[in-house]
Amino acid sequence: MSLLDYFRKSKPKSAAIAKERLQILVAHERTARNRPSYLPQLQKELLDVIRKYVNVDQDAISVNFEQDENQETLELNIVLPDYQQENKSVNM
Amino acid sequence: MSLLDYFRKSKPKSAAIAKERLQILVAHERTARNRPSYLPQLQKELLDVIRKYVNVDQDAISVNFEQDENQETLELNIVLPDYQQENKSVNM
Repeated sequence: MSLLDYFRKSKPKSAAIAKERLQILVAHERTARNRPSYLPQLQKELLDVIRKYVNVDQDAISVNFEQDENQETLELNIVLPDYQQENKSVNM
Repeated sequence: MSLLDYFRKSKPKSAAIAKERLQILVAHERTARNRPSYLPQLQKELLDVIRKYVNVDQDAISVNFEQDENQETLELNIVLPDYQQENKSVNM
């Protein structure tokens, strides 16, 4: 299964709630367990980068952090504001 | 299927090649197609953030960018250097 398929399956089917969304996933396979995780700190910095491109309300972000023996994953789901509301320009 | 399950299925089975890995996925569901994608630019900035935490060789990064009608996904796979080789400290 490709990554694109995963996201296709994951997203809501209804076209009525067609909001723009940005989803960021970070997975860290760890071999050394004695070091502190840097994902929580990384999360803040990633959001700072995202905010350069789009307006993101704090309310519009949902965060999920999962951890098991060998791996930790950070998932950020962001509902983007409507195009009309955006006032930041993207500098390409 | 949870996100963690997806990554569990995706990773190589062999313990002999147990390198530390960092995988970053960005999915952007787009409703307006007339704006330029900012994912390529975002990719560079995300890598800059990652490099604050771990040493990443350019050779150790593989990038996959997929695009369809409604969505684009950016996938970064990074093989991290062995612990012994790292010389950057993580400032928590």
